[in-house]
Amino acid sequence: MTVQISHTEHVQNFFKEASGFGNDAGSSRLKTVINRILVDAAKIIEDLEITQDEFWKAVDYLNRLGGRNEAGLLVAGLGLEHYLDLLQDAKDEQAGLTGGTPRTIEGPLYVAGAPIAEGQVRMDDGSEDGVATVMFLEGQVVDVDGKPIAGATVDLWHANTQGNYSYFDKSQSDYNLRRRIITDAEGRYRARSIVPSGYGCSPDGPTQECLDLLGRHGQRPAHIHFFISAPGHRHLTTQINLSGDKYLWDDFAYATRDGLVGEIRFNEDAEAARARGVEGRFAEVDFDFQLQKAPAPQAEQRSQRPRALQEA
Amino acid sequence: MTVQISHTEHVQNFFKEASGFGNDAGSSRLKTVINRILVDAAKIIEDLEITQDEFWKAVDYLNRLGGRNEAGLLVAGLGLEHYLDLLQDAKDEQAGLTGGTPRTIEGPLYVAGAPIAEGQVRMDDGSEDGVATVMFLEGQVVDVDGKPIAGATVDLWHANTQGNYSYFDKSQSDYNLRRRIITDAEGRYRARSIVPSGYGCSPDGPTQECLDLLGRHGQRPAHIHFFISAPGHRHLTTQINLSGDKYLWDDFAYATRDGLVGEIRFNEDAEAARARGVEGRFAEVDFDFQLQKAPAPQAEQRSQRPRALQEA
Repeated sequence: MTVQISHTEHVQNFFKEASGFGNDAGSSRLKTVINRILVDAAKIIEDLEITQDEFWKAVDYLNRLGGRNEAGLLVAGLGLEHYLDLLQDAKDEQAGLTGGTPRTIEGPLYVAGAPIAEGQVRMDDGSEDGVATVMFLEGQVVDVDGKPIAGATVDLWHANTQGNYSYFDKSQSDYNLRRRIITDAEGRYRARSIVPSGYGCSPDGPTQECLDLLGRHGQRPAHIHFFISAPGHRHLTTQINLSGDKYLWDDFAYATRDGLVGEIRFNEDAEAARARGVEGRFAEVDFDFQLQKAPAPQAEQRSQRPRALQEA
Repeated sequence: MTVQISHTEHVQNFFKEASGFGNDAGSSRLKTVINRILVDAAKIIEDLEITQDEFWKAVDYLNRLGGRNEAGLLVAGLGLEHYLDLLQDAKDEQAGLTGGTPRTIEGPLYVAGAPIAEGQVRMDDGSEDGVATVMFLEGQVVDVDGKPIAGATVDLWHANTQGNYSYFDKSQSDYNLRRRIITDAEGRYRARSIVPSGYGCSPDGPTQECLDLLGRHGQRPAHIHFFISAPGHRHLTTQINLSGDKYLWDDFAYATRDGLVGEIRFNEDAEAARARGVEGRFAEVDFDFQLQKAPAPQAEQRSQRPRALQEA
C-alpha cells in the first residue's frame, strides 16, 4: 500500500523548479543542495510513510528549535558535529596530514572577542569564590617537532560550577571563564580558573525533548574548550574532558576522544596551596597541544561558522 | 579526492547509537526517523562535499528560520507542502477516493477558534473602509451526489489589502478576516468581506533569503483559505486563488490548482451596489465546494498540525 511518487518525472521536475533550476539568478551551489534535500526528504517521507501529523510536528519542532537557538546543540547531540570530525580525520589521512593533538567538536557556546592576556591569566571573576574549587591549568604549545611555539593564541572557554557559560547565562559577567592567552617564549600558557561542572541541555528545551524520545540523556562531562592558533600552523579546535567525570565516556555530544582526556589532580596540601597563593583544596590540570604545520595559509584560520560576539 | 565514510560499519553504528538504538526507552518510531535523517544527511555532506562553512551556515540558518517562526513558510515555498498534496492525491487514487473539490496547501497562517456565524457574516472589522473593495463571497457545500450539506462548517481566512493576516499582523483586530460559517438548510455560506491582496514573504526574513539565492520570488496571488467539514464527510483543506492576479499561476507556494481558481467579478453598477447595501465598486466571488464521504470517522478531522490559537 506504499505509494511512491518522488521518482516520477513530474515530481522530479517540480523539485527542480522549486530549487530554482528554471532560472539563471541566485546561487547554483544552493540550488544543487536544496534540490538534493527536497528529493531525499520526499524519499524519506515515502519510505517511512511519514504521516501529515508527523510532518507538521517536525516543522513545528524546527520553529521551536530555532526559537531557542538550539540547532547547534541538536547537531552536536545527534552526533553530526562529531561525524564532521571523523570525516575531516579521514580527509586528513588521505592528504597525509596526520599527527598532533586530535581535533574535537567546537559546540555552540563560543563567544568571539575574549580578553587577551600574555603568559598567565585569571579567568574567573571571583563570583564563585568559596563555592568553586580553584583550578590551575597550564601547558605548552609545540610544533610537529616538539619545539615550543611562542606567541600562539590559546583561546579557551569553559562552564562555571553550574555547567553554564557566560554570555548565554546572563547572570555571569561578560567573558567570565573566557580568555585568549598568548603563549610565552617557551610556548607556555597558564590560567588560574575554577573547576567547571559538566554541561546539561536545558531540561525544557527542544534538544532535550528529542533526546528524551531517543531514550538518551543530554549531559556532558566537565570539559574545557580550546581554539589554538599560530602563524604557519594549522588551526586546532579541540577540548579536554576531565578525568573522573561520570560522563567522561558517555558524552551526549560525543566530544571525548583518546588523547583529549585531561587528568585533573586535586590537592589538599595547605602548603602547596599557599605556594599557589590560594587557600584550601585546589586542582591542577596540565595539558600540552601539538599543532600541525599549515598546509596552506587558510588552514591557519578556524571555520567561518557564525559565532556570538559579546556586545560592548 | 572525495572521501566517503558514512557507509562504514563504524559510522553506521555510531548513527545507530546516536539515534538511541542502544536503549529500550523513548519512541522507536522517532529513532527510525532520526537514524534515516542522519544517514541521509551524512551522504549528502559527502556526495556534495559540503564544507564546514556551508554546514554551519545551514545550522545558523535553521536557528534564524525558527527564530522567525518561518519553518512552515519555507516548506511551502520549497514545494514540500504541495508535494504532500500530490502524494495524498496518489494515495487517494489508489484507495479509490476520488472526486470532489481538490485539496491544496493550508499554509502556516491559520488561527484556531474564529467566531462562528450561521449562514451569513461580515468578516472585516471596517478598518479598511474606503480603502478596500467590498467582496461578497458565497457558495454552496454539496456532497458527492451534488446534494446540499446543511450545517457544514466553512472555516475561512484571508489577508487584508496589505497582504497581511490578523494575529500575525498585530495591527489588525482579533480574528479580522477569519470566520467559521455554518451552512444553512441549502448548504449555503455567505460572507461580506474585502478583496484580499496577494501575500508576500517578509523581505528581511529567512524564507525570502533562501528564495533570493534560488533566484525565486516569494509572492502569492490573492487567495482565500478554507477548511470545510461536516459530519460524515471528509475534511477538506483548500484555497481559492482569485482570477486576474499576476501571480495566479506563478505562486511561490504552488497552491494554485485546476478547479481552485475563483472568478472575481468587479461591479461598478451603483444600483447593484445599493441592492447589496454598499456604495461604489464592489466584487463578487461565487464558489461551491463538494466534499467526499468520510471513509472513516477520523477522516472528518483536519490534520493534527500544531496551529496558532488567539489568546483571549
